[in-house]
Amino acid sequence: MKKVLILATGGTISSRAGEGGLAPTAAPPALMSALEEFRAYYDLTYRAILNLDSSNIQSEEWQLIARSVYESLPQYDGIVITHGTDTMAYTASALTFMLQNLNKPVVLTGSQIPIGTPLSDARSNLATALAAVDHDVIGVSIAFNHKLLSGCRAVKVRTMGFDAFESVNSPDVGEFFADGVHLLSRRRPCKSEPCLLKDKLCNDIFLLRLIPGTNPKIFDSLLELGYRGVVLEGFGAGGMHFVRRDLSPKIKRLVERGVPVVVSSQCLYEQSDFSLYEVGRKVLATGAIQSLDMTTEAAVTKLMWALGQTSDMEEIREIFATDYAGEITFEHLNA
Amino acid sequence: MKKVLILATGGTISSRAGEGGLAPTAAPPALMSALEEFRAYYDLTYRAILNLDSSNIQSEEWQLIARSVYESLPQYDGIVITHGTDTMAYTASALTFMLQNLNKPVVLTGSQIPIGTPLSDARSNLATALAAVDHDVIGVSIAFNHKLLSGCRAVKVRTMGFDAFESVNSPDVGEFFADGVHLLSRRRPCKSEPCLLKDKLCNDIFLLRLIPGTNPKIFDSLLELGYRGVVLEGFGAGGMHFVRRDLSPKIKRLVERGVPVVVSSQCLYEQSDFSLYEVGRKVLATGAIQSLDMTTEAAVTKLMWALGQTSDMEEIREIFATDYAGEITFEHLNA
Repeated sequence: MKKVLILATGGTISSRAGEGGLAPTAAPPALMSALEEFRAYYDLTYRAILNLDSSNIQSEEWQLIARSVYESLPQYDGIVITHGTDTMAYTASALTFMLQNLNKPVVLTGSQIPIGTPLSDARSNLATALAAVDHDVIGVSIAFNHKLLSGCRAVKVRTMGFDAFESVNSPDVGEFFADGVHLLSRRRPCKSEPCLLKDKLCNDIFLLRLIPGTNPKIFDSLLELGYRGVVLEGFGAGGMHFVRRDLSPKIKRLVERGVPVVVSSQCLYEQSDFSLYEVGRKVLATGAIQSLDMTTEAAVTKLMWALGQTSDMEEIREIFATDYAGEITFEHLNA
Repeated sequence: MKKVLILATGGTISSRAGEGGLAPTAAPPALMSALEEFRAYYDLTYRAILNLDSSNIQSEEWQLIARSVYESLPQYDGIVITHGTDTMAYTASALTFMLQNLNKPVVLTGSQIPIGTPLSDARSNLATALAAVDHDVIGVSIAFNHKLLSGCRAVKVRTMGFDAFESVNSPDVGEFFADGVHLLSRRRPCKSEPCLLKDKLCNDIFLLRLIPGTNPKIFDSLLELGYRGVVLEGFGAGGMHFVRRDLSPKIKRLVERGVPVVVSSQCLYEQSDFSLYEVGRKVLATGAIQSLDMTTEAAVTKLMWALGQTSDMEEIREIFATDYAGEITFEHLNA
């Protein structure tokens, strides 16, 4: 019988209707009774470390969660983290970078409807997460709607549907069928080095999703506001405007002041490549770093994490050229 | 034989490889010869009004395109606009609002690979656009990969694949099969009122896609920079953080200063509804306007257009509660 720790952080899975709208509660009876049933199959320990709607989960909570996982992992076969769906993909990506050389399963799950209501997906998602531990799916995953997704590849793409998450630019890790789990993508072999907690993060990151006509002055403001890194979502395969409102000189100024600018696409699927078009090459010439086929969630959390480890621009470049856990699969020289 | 005007604006469909990467040329011979063949079926006029990569197409170009369409439409059965794919969805949404009561087809198309190369999708997409005119598909559409999408519903979701666009939160207008076009969603009946050109736009719009931990100070900077409207992409069905970094008081301050703030979800699919969770209700209490199930492209261009028509907050609210061309389908009281 696998020994599993459930770390509860709040979210819809723990929410109840209150006067101000749905809000999480510490140990909802319906969740407790679901866990009681699962105890026929798993040796479960439940610990609520947070009680937040995941819209409120930020880097400080990621650090608390990462430390809790790191400290508890030696005593368990795996850890299931219950979490709101809204920022689950950000948390999963952040944990992927903060917990290096993971050698056991760390599975996030939650639900679109609160547990204890007839249509809720909570119990099924919990069962999927526990099964991922059972199948020794190493590393950070998200279990949702009978699927297992790599934590650094998941994106919440639907606001209401039960199939809320997609694995973007990478196959699902596994899918559950009537005959059991089909593991679809080979998880990296667990490393022989011990698990490392690298939990320093930089909060001063700005995500700028361009719109046609974005005023270049915003980059001056980002410098004045003290931002230390920027993720910039351009158009299509890789383009930004230079007619009338030339963004490149401002991006260059940021890079020269030691602020890494990571450029990506606002298209959800497939890789960006700023070397293809003139409108992209001008951006690359500023010294911007390409995010290639990373999700925005992975690019943002990787930059927060990279700037937590170092302020050296070349080391940041090196971190972005490194695939830590499958967050980059597009083959491309980045450095 | 239908009389069709081709308005060329540049884009990959007109691009050739140069030293600085792919860049558009005015009248590429391969495009000219493709049009020559289509002249067996259509009475075609070709006019290049711009020669830009669409990453460079901004509100000034939307105005030029809208005016060209408005002035030429009486002399043609329909207009096909060739355009880069990168910002085509923004242009299509903007034209939808700028050209009111359209009673003829206005179809944007382009390609993922330049015309004149063996694998190019340019000729097929052009044929699809011309067929849309043939079938009297009224209003602004995008023709791409054998599909017709409503202009205000299209989103570029793939950077490289031929199936680059999706109709988000709305069925395709039509699909082309071996037996011809299957029109899937009923286009609105053309209005009896004459077509109106309402081409004033406000450029001072900022799109802010939240990340966990977004510093509320950015809203003060947006006020100082003179932005007149903000589209704010929150988490999931509708949430923003208030723990440690409370965004609501800053949003409220913007609204009180007469800057409309339109709140939406960063999830690609399905509607946002900020009334469900406590983390959303706090945002709604600031006076923010809900974008419901509009695409970000539609929400941004609608706000640019709304602020071009009026500065009155109640009129802006009224515009956002109005469905002009199918850009909102989620039934919800917005006002």
